[in-house]
Amino acid sequence: MMLIVLGNTEISLIKGISIAGANPELTKYTPPADVEYIFYGRPKVIDAVPVTPQGHPTPAIITKACWELANFPITVVRAGTFFKPMVPHVHISDEVGRDFRRGKALPNAEEIVELSECLGRELSKSFKRIAVGESTPGGTTTAQAVLWALGYDAKTSSAAPNNPQELKRRVIEEGFRRVGIGFGDVNDPITALEEFGDPTLACIFGICRGFKGEVVLAGGTQMLAVSALLKASGVGLERFKIATTRWVAEDKSATFKDTARSIGVDYWVAPLDFSKSRYRGLRDYERGYVKEGVGAGGAVYLAEESGFSSEDVFKKVEELYSLLQV
Amino acid sequence: MMLIVLGNTEISLIKGISIAGANPELTKYTPPADVEYIFYGRPKVIDAVPVTPQGHPTPAIITKACWELANFPITVVRAGTFFKPMVPHVHISDEVGRDFRRGKALPNAEEIVELSECLGRELSKSFKRIAVGESTPGGTTTAQAVLWALGYDAKTSSAAPNNPQELKRRVIEEGFRRVGIGFGDVNDPITALEEFGDPTLACIFGICRGFKGEVVLAGGTQMLAVSALLKASGVGLERFKIATTRWVAEDKSATFKDTARSIGVDYWVAPLDFSKSRYRGLRDYERGYVKEGVGAGGAVYLAEESGFSSEDVFKKVEELYSLLQV
Repeated sequence: MMLIVLGNTEISLIKGISIAGANPELTKYTPPADVEYIFYGRPKVIDAVPVTPQGHPTPAIITKACWELANFPITVVRAGTFFKPMVPHVHISDEVGRDFRRGKALPNAEEIVELSECLGRELSKSFKRIAVGESTPGGTTTAQAVLWALGYDAKTSSAAPNNPQELKRRVIEEGFRRVGIGFGDVNDPITALEEFGDPTLACIFGICRGFKGEVVLAGGTQMLAVSALLKASGVGLERFKIATTRWVAEDKSATFKDTARSIGVDYWVAPLDFSKSRYRGLRDYERGYVKEGVGAGGAVYLAEESGFSSEDVFKKVEELYSLLQV
Repeated sequence: MMLIVLGNTEISLIKGISIAGANPELTKYTPPADVEYIFYGRPKVIDAVPVTPQGHPTPAIITKACWELANFPITVVRAGTFFKPMVPHVHISDEVGRDFRRGKALPNAEEIVELSECLGRELSKSFKRIAVGESTPGGTTTAQAVLWALGYDAKTSSAAPNNPQELKRRVIEEGFRRVGIGFGDVNDPITALEEFGDPTLACIFGICRGFKGEVVLAGGTQMLAVSALLKASGVGLERFKIATTRWVAEDKSATFKDTARSIGVDYWVAPLDFSKSRYRGLRDYERGYVKEGVGAGGAVYLAEESGFSSEDVFKKVEELYSLLQV
């Protein structure tokens, strides 16, 4: 079972911070469009597959490839998005994360966490293990803010090859000034989520607390923040493992491996290689575009368990790409 | 796994047709309140457990008793209700069924069926069998209208001891006049749902079409309508079984067993007996009050499978009743 948690944060509307959409305004549509693409082959909420401004398709293409190969169940969870996904989905909230430079990011953090814990508890009755991915434009910045608030000197990856670290830093520092805190000044996970988080982080944190079994945290940067939140709340990390892509793990503009080690969470790296793709849109993954998202790394993990190699996944991704009009 | 599908129809607002609420206006709150009561012990959407005008508590008390005993997972599905349930739930639609005397009952029937089919397909990957219950005030009237439209001469049960069959008949005939059809004139299940159905019937019909394994249809009257819709759409009924309560199966004002036989769907009857209850609110079940709902009969079926007798369920219901302030 893979959950794909959808969230929006106003942070993605800041110019230059997210390329999870052809322009900042379009990042509002990306989470529902991602899962609609997986289920139906094309989005419904908007008439185009999410792309970067340069036209690189959403990493949902990797998740979809693994899903079509290995046929694992997917449950979509709306943690808090601008638009309702046009697929059956678990409703947690329809409120998006706010721009944390101007006010609390997530006044309803506690409510999201509680509902998500309840969801996690119920899932425990049916599943020994779950994987959890997400689609959240701007989510690496909120994740980094949460990590800094909790005292982890992390640089998070970006879907852009030129990681806008300087801009992320300025935005986060502006948020810290609003609250009147400095690096590492927050101990309480709910406070970190309320002040700097987003619906996705709160929801996955809650699911992980409620669920009793093993969890594959399918993602890079944001799953580090979830791990740090869990640790801060006293949850042991033995039953959690991050599954991400090579492009995140090897990202020199970020600190994935170091941060994972300092939090003390295990990780697995999907050995995807798109360098021989027929399509520039996929070859560009090797140049730092896109990298991860929509549970791509974790989906490869599930596909490998079902006997499909990264090469099989790559071939399926090529096939799906050929069906896209990008 | 038990799904509890929530729906509203404006039909419940017709005076005298439904007692699934202390008054017609309050029937709007019953579906979310039922599942909130199961999960939290008290409703959140409104500050009172759903009761009949005479104060009999919701049959969700039986479902909750079985759930607490056998600990099966419950997934709430919002097929279409006035209010959002304050529990994690699968969102299908937030549009309620309309009064079919005045216009189409469910213009979005096809969309609900498609989304629900998709949900059923995904559930197939995780579960070999599901149970499906519902909470839908007024739902026995829409069910009866659908059965008549499809040509089954059924009288459906009511939560009231004096089944308002005369009123149901007048309401249904007014709906038939609007469409200009007579008894048995509809062959197509989507047309039956659009003209006379409700969100719950459309949703359960879709789930059953998409799901590949066995289905326990946890309910009485409305599950007959679902079975008839499935049969009309060419789905074989071998993998379906209705699980209902004695109070429905033995209801002399209705035709449960005869209708089940003429549709050709198997059924199981929960041998609950509340005649020795300490509480009048429960003893009155034996006088024809409430009878079934929120998957009560199917929940007893699941509890029995886990080794709990009807007597165990009765004791747990008594215990839960003692915690209610009704």
